[in-house]
Amino acid sequence: MNKEEYIVPGFKAGGVAAGIRYQGRPDLALIVSEVSAAAAGVFTTNKVQAAPVILSRSHLTGNRARAIVVNSGIANACTGEVGLQRARATAHKVAEAIGCPIHEVLVASTGVIGMDLPYEPVANCLPHLVSAVRADGWLEAARAIMTTDTVPKIHMVQGLLQNRPFTVLGIAKGAGMIYPNMATLLAFVATDAAISGEALQALVRAETDRSFNRITVDGDTSTNDTLFVLANGFAGNETIRNMNSSDGERFREALGEVLLKLAKMIVADGEGATKFVKITVKGGPNKAAALLAARTVSNSSLVKTAFFGEDANWGRVLAALGRAGIDFEPQRVDLYFNGVKLVENGLAVGEEAEAHVTEILKESSFSLTIDLGQGKAEETVYTCDFSLDYVKINANYRS
Amino acid sequence: MNKEEYIVPGFKAGGVAAGIRYQGRPDLALIVSEVSAAAAGVFTTNKVQAAPVILSRSHLTGNRARAIVVNSGIANACTGEVGLQRARATAHKVAEAIGCPIHEVLVASTGVIGMDLPYEPVANCLPHLVSAVRADGWLEAARAIMTTDTVPKIHMVQGLLQNRPFTVLGIAKGAGMIYPNMATLLAFVATDAAISGEALQALVRAETDRSFNRITVDGDTSTNDTLFVLANGFAGNETIRNMNSSDGERFREALGEVLLKLAKMIVADGEGATKFVKITVKGGPNKAAALLAARTVSNSSLVKTAFFGEDANWGRVLAALGRAGIDFEPQRVDLYFNGVKLVENGLAVGEEAEAHVTEILKESSFSLTIDLGQGKAEETVYTCDFSLDYVKINANYRS
Repeated sequence: MNKEEYIVPGFKAGGVAAGIRYQGRPDLALIVSEVSAAAAGVFTTNKVQAAPVILSRSHLTGNRARAIVVNSGIANACTGEVGLQRARATAHKVAEAIGCPIHEVLVASTGVIGMDLPYEPVANCLPHLVSAVRADGWLEAARAIMTTDTVPKIHMVQGLLQNRPFTVLGIAKGAGMIYPNMATLLAFVATDAAISGEALQALVRAETDRSFNRITVDGDTSTNDTLFVLANGFAGNETIRNMNSSDGERFREALGEVLLKLAKMIVADGEGATKFVKITVKGGPNKAAALLAARTVSNSSLVKTAFFGEDANWGRVLAALGRAGIDFEPQRVDLYFNGVKLVENGLAVGEEAEAHVTEILKESSFSLTIDLGQGKAEETVYTCDFSLDYVKINANYRS
Repeated sequence: MNKEEYIVPGFKAGGVAAGIRYQGRPDLALIVSEVSAAAAGVFTTNKVQAAPVILSRSHLTGNRARAIVVNSGIANACTGEVGLQRARATAHKVAEAIGCPIHEVLVASTGVIGMDLPYEPVANCLPHLVSAVRADGWLEAARAIMTTDTVPKIHMVQGLLQNRPFTVLGIAKGAGMIYPNMATLLAFVATDAAISGEALQALVRAETDRSFNRITVDGDTSTNDTLFVLANGFAGNETIRNMNSSDGERFREALGEVLLKLAKMIVADGEGATKFVKITVKGGPNKAAALLAARTVSNSSLVKTAFFGEDANWGRVLAALGRAGIDFEPQRVDLYFNGVKLVENGLAVGEEAEAHVTEILKESSFSLTIDLGQGKAEETVYTCDFSLDYVKINANYRS
């Protein structure tokens, strides 16, 4: 899609290079709704929470927001009282410029932990940015929130509510410190659908669990994970309050698709990633065990380096399952890549199957299905491989 | 020490190249006690257990053994009934040659999971190996159990029990699939001290917890982890039955030193490792929380790649603590490298401290101390960095 096609009625967005950590790299993004919008958010479950997370959580208690301001480069985490003051000053500056109460401005940051966020570049650029946001400025905003991401992440879905068109558009950043046991990373979604703040908050929590909480890059949970969803009602539909209504279902589907698509984009663009792998555990004794099994395999350094090496090393998958802490019998496990059975009842199927799977592993995207043969529970997670570039990127990230 | 100095009265050891997976590489080791010895063992906690683990566990119920036979190259894991038959046949062959009941032979394997262990090379070499073991053959045995290890791991301690000298000697292999939440990897210890099988088993379990269960290379637990300790009584001391006696204490100290030293050698020679890092968490609310915190930091890919990059990226340490699932207040955390304070009350101490720590990180070995400021509990674990070579080794391990 072209930049002109990414539009949500009643929203403007944009990004600029404020010089927060590097010169000439977009690092400040702003999203503004023309009116006060229903707002929902989920945050990192990490005990160490960045200043913008602490501030935005308090601002969200009313479930209303006009704007989201985001910087990349510096996470404003582990920065104490100074960090909180800078986050507050940033929100205040935006609130002043667009004319809304400070608690209707949400703040997010991403980048290096433990460095002070310089306030001057932010303060100097914000007035300009407030006047520069445009209806078709979403790609600029998506670019300004990137850190080690190699591509901007944006996805849009359109549908009908009471025969009126509505739009859900989301942007996200990912790359490293990405682990499923979290709220999410940085993702921002705008929709013109009308929906109550309470219904939106419950929906966002559930859909996050099915999307961002099903991915991993490196098993490390960020201090800054944040997802905000703003709904300004410009679609003109009757406000959705019941998610079990047909409008509720339709909106859930659209939002769920945007979140899952963004989550997958984050995995595919994980730091150093060369493979996108969908891991499904079925035949689990219960959902929790199936999810734990899938997550343990998806986070195993040995499984992920084998993916990078295009090596059908299924023994590492079995070994990861065996330490997952779930109840199962190894001699009942079947294992498939793209539907080709490699392991049956815990034993190798044979050389022909292995040769076939070795071909599959050369693709940039494939699925691994593990059938525990214990019950009917099934869970899917998404992961990437562990490459030389992951180590290179993270050994040099601060320098 | 020279090879001639590694001697335990009443024991012989040796290793040969049997051609199990590669030609001309030592891959079969044998340890024999002249008499039936008190024996103890601990095994992997992985649900997927290799054939030699299943067999040796049953052989150890009597807490007596004459011999340990070990192959590298192929793990004989996920090999079903065939694997168990081969492990049994191997034990039988050794029992026949040295003249002891089959249940006094312990078996261990390490290498690729899911491949059948070829029996011919083992059967052909065993008679020769049984006659080739020598009192000073421990280094050959240590070499024959290596896989991706770059150096053989051997350590010996001598002491006095009732004024009689006694010796504790251990060998081990490590490198990859090394994670603290396990029984141990492959390690074999011989001593001429006299100790009852029951006392030995309890002691080995406790000391393993303080040594092998405190290390990590990559967070992946092997299917083959095994530690055996054989005590043949040649020292002539009165048999130790009470570990609280002065002899019991003396023996505990010697065994503990050997196990901890071997464990540290495994970390230092972890796959691709360039840094050895001792991580201590103090000020924990309780032991379990301190250990969980230390383990989470020691397994974080981002912390470990920062070690590799010699980057004083303390924010990643705080982020790892924050997802460890323990109760603490980030604003009370202090952090030190080799005793130099880098973080105080959750905030950076300053540029001078960071410059100092950056110098420390250039060393090949250093300590990281985390003071949670919550209580008095303290735990220490050992880890290595996450390097480009780790990925290279594991992307290519089977090829």
